[in-house]
Amino acid sequence: MNAVEQRLTKEPKRAPAAQSAAPELPAQAGGEGKRTDRWLLGRMLASLGSPPLELAIQGGARVGAHTPVARVTFDSRATMLWVLGDVPLRFGDAYSDGKLSVEGDLVTLLETVYRAGRRLGGERDPIARRVSRVLRRPHVNTLSGSRDNIHHHYDIGNSFYELWLGSTMAYTCAYYPDPAATLDEAQVAKMDHVCRKLRLRPGERVVEAGCGWGMLAMHMARRYGVRVRAFNISHEQIQWARERAQREGLSGRVEYVEDDYRNISGQYDAFVSVGMLEHVGLKNYPTLGGVVQRCLGGRGRGLIHSIGRNRPAPLQPWIERRIFPGGYPPALSEMARIFEPWDLSILDVENLRLHYAQTLRHWLALFEGARGRVRSMFDEKFVRMWRLYLAGSVAAFSTGSLQLFQVVFAPGESNDIPWTRAHAYTS
Amino acid sequence: MNAVEQRLTKEPKRAPAAQSAAPELPAQAGGEGKRTDRWLLGRMLASLGSPPLELAIQGGARVGAHTPVARVTFDSRATMLWVLGDVPLRFGDAYSDGKLSVEGDLVTLLETVYRAGRRLGGERDPIARRVSRVLRRPHVNTLSGSRDNIHHHYDIGNSFYELWLGSTMAYTCAYYPDPAATLDEAQVAKMDHVCRKLRLRPGERVVEAGCGWGMLAMHMARRYGVRVRAFNISHEQIQWARERAQREGLSGRVEYVEDDYRNISGQYDAFVSVGMLEHVGLKNYPTLGGVVQRCLGGRGRGLIHSIGRNRPAPLQPWIERRIFPGGYPPALSEMARIFEPWDLSILDVENLRLHYAQTLRHWLALFEGARGRVRSMFDEKFVRMWRLYLAGSVAAFSTGSLQLFQVVFAPGESNDIPWTRAHAYTS
Repeated sequence: MNAVEQRLTKEPKRAPAAQSAAPELPAQAGGEGKRTDRWLLGRMLASLGSPPLELAIQGGARVGAHTPVARVTFDSRATMLWVLGDVPLRFGDAYSDGKLSVEGDLVTLLETVYRAGRRLGGERDPIARRVSRVLRRPHVNTLSGSRDNIHHHYDIGNSFYELWLGSTMAYTCAYYPDPAATLDEAQVAKMDHVCRKLRLRPGERVVEAGCGWGMLAMHMARRYGVRVRAFNISHEQIQWARERAQREGLSGRVEYVEDDYRNISGQYDAFVSVGMLEHVGLKNYPTLGGVVQRCLGGRGRGLIHSIGRNRPAPLQPWIERRIFPGGYPPALSEMARIFEPWDLSILDVENLRLHYAQTLRHWLALFEGARGRVRSMFDEKFVRMWRLYLAGSVAAFSTGSLQLFQVVFAPGESNDIPWTRAHAYTS
Repeated sequence: MNAVEQRLTKEPKRAPAAQSAAPELPAQAGGEGKRTDRWLLGRMLASLGSPPLELAIQGGARVGAHTPVARVTFDSRATMLWVLGDVPLRFGDAYSDGKLSVEGDLVTLLETVYRAGRRLGGERDPIARRVSRVLRRPHVNTLSGSRDNIHHHYDIGNSFYELWLGSTMAYTCAYYPDPAATLDEAQVAKMDHVCRKLRLRPGERVVEAGCGWGMLAMHMARRYGVRVRAFNISHEQIQWARERAQREGLSGRVEYVEDDYRNISGQYDAFVSVGMLEHVGLKNYPTLGGVVQRCLGGRGRGLIHSIGRNRPAPLQPWIERRIFPGGYPPALSEMARIFEPWDLSILDVENLRLHYAQTLRHWLALFEGARGRVRSMFDEKFVRMWRLYLAGSVAAFSTGSLQLFQVVFAPGESNDIPWTRAHAYTS
């Protein structure tokens, strides 16, 4: 029994998680209604793969494990019924609106749900899956669609992200040479890991697709002596990056271009993209590969860093709707569609999912520390949405529902490739 | 101009590679026939993507580059016409039968052909490709089919392989920590590289699928303190491995099983397969993944080491017919079919193609040094076949036509996975 379980089972004000022995509290539904509610809550729990949770309606029915790792309480029968109509999407919405509360650790709760979902596996009705795919048609990533999708997430205010991303403003998986490293140390180590894998040499030209707040580009220019052209369609991020580069005297060596990766032109020694592929959309992978091929022209090296999957599956629907419109984490077999049409050779793949779980734990802790300020910048609903998103992401990576792939590649005909990977580990 | 070109262009007995100025030598075809032959040789060269070679008929027509890197001479018009009917298959057959000769370095010649073929790219008629796929239906890998296919290549005599594989009897890509390493050093380094990637711990149980002459299994038991069950369907190899293990006092810790990977049973901490996947056949990949899943049961680690491709393509037809019946080098997207159905997580992929080119150069040199003995064991045709196979393989890896993938994986739900890859580089 862990600490959360103890807290839950020792809690004096609530009856233990029993389906029949609970005293008759004032209920929204009568005896018959309560039996129905229990049946409905039971169905909801079963649809999640029966994780060891307790589900309850405030002052009403409750079902679930005898030693639940967490308890979810709906504020009313109406909320419970509404969530039941589309659990993957509406659980998040009800949580954000404060219409359901969670006792116990949110990350642990979500890890439990992810693990139970894995046991459910492919059992889900394929017709239901197809129907839900049509109903929940993801946001498309045309040139203008991408701009809308990116604006939705990244242009909500640099000062918000500054509250919890740490000093590097890197909004992608960090690399912890040691699990005890700090967030900032790990983000700098990630930048070095990327640069070493690419074997950057002074004087080389690098193009970056989707540069965020531009700190990797500055790091490459400062520490590895390369010249960088960095593309991004988030207006707010590009502004921030240009000002920072100006302040640091790097403007001559780093150029930030507010444009889509599809419009990249010129010849480069290296292509790098950290955390953009999630927004590219499967259909555009061959186009992205064509951009790479054009940039490198039969020589050079490249690296793409992206969230991924063990096998193809759509993004969690609440995340796709509310957090990352148009987002899609590919399986490695899908990432291959970038490379195969252009005879690009995959040289190295590293899966860093446990590092992303750790990064997200650090972000979540900083976010919680700043939640008062976040609330004053936005509102309580925003705080709850982002808490759920960050906690859910920790859970997705720690349970293996999401992966993080760093893929190094080179044009197929090029022999100017690293002989071994030892250079990335011996400085 | 390289050394071969100089030798060829300086050679006094032959006219330079000119299509019209060549003196009228005694020809098998008259003036009209010679023009036809030149046209036909020109077509053959074009079908190869116009590599900088000279093609000639002995005492007759010749076409090609002014400074060819090598010269191919057919012994007769009949041979040339016969080869023209199916160049990818019959070039190798004519070479093996001594009906065509090569001046210049065989590896360089074949590298030139591979590079030109890449330029040809996807231009090849898709209907012709489909027809050739039907005509050249590869050998299937059913339980009995696999036995026949493996017998064809691996049971031709251990003493033959002992002549040129070096002391480790490893018939797979070696790992050269330094390009100057010897073959034996590199083969031992490969075994260590595999064991480190798997993070073998003393007392663990390992299953090996396709163990060759069993030296990796013995290395794992001796150096890493694990117990190994190693499967192989080559009778000759299993016999050799058992005797060797007996001699080295390792019989108690290594068990060799003469059986198909599909019949592996039991629970293990690690699954390893080095150089078997090429013989498994695409259709059986999900079955192989199922075996892995069964062996590891939600925990442990695995490694599969295999020849691969940048994109799906059949094995070179002559190699599939004469050398590796049933062989198929998969693209990484195809290898994913092993892992995806079972939610196995790909943790690490390393492409070692330049190491395989180096390994093959070492094998080829040892083979050439022993060709007199090989000839006395078999015949001249066998020597030429194997020379062509080894030289062609050097060329395929050095030009990026083939890849070598080492893939580390683990059950998707397991967090008992290496935190970083540093342990493989710091001893």
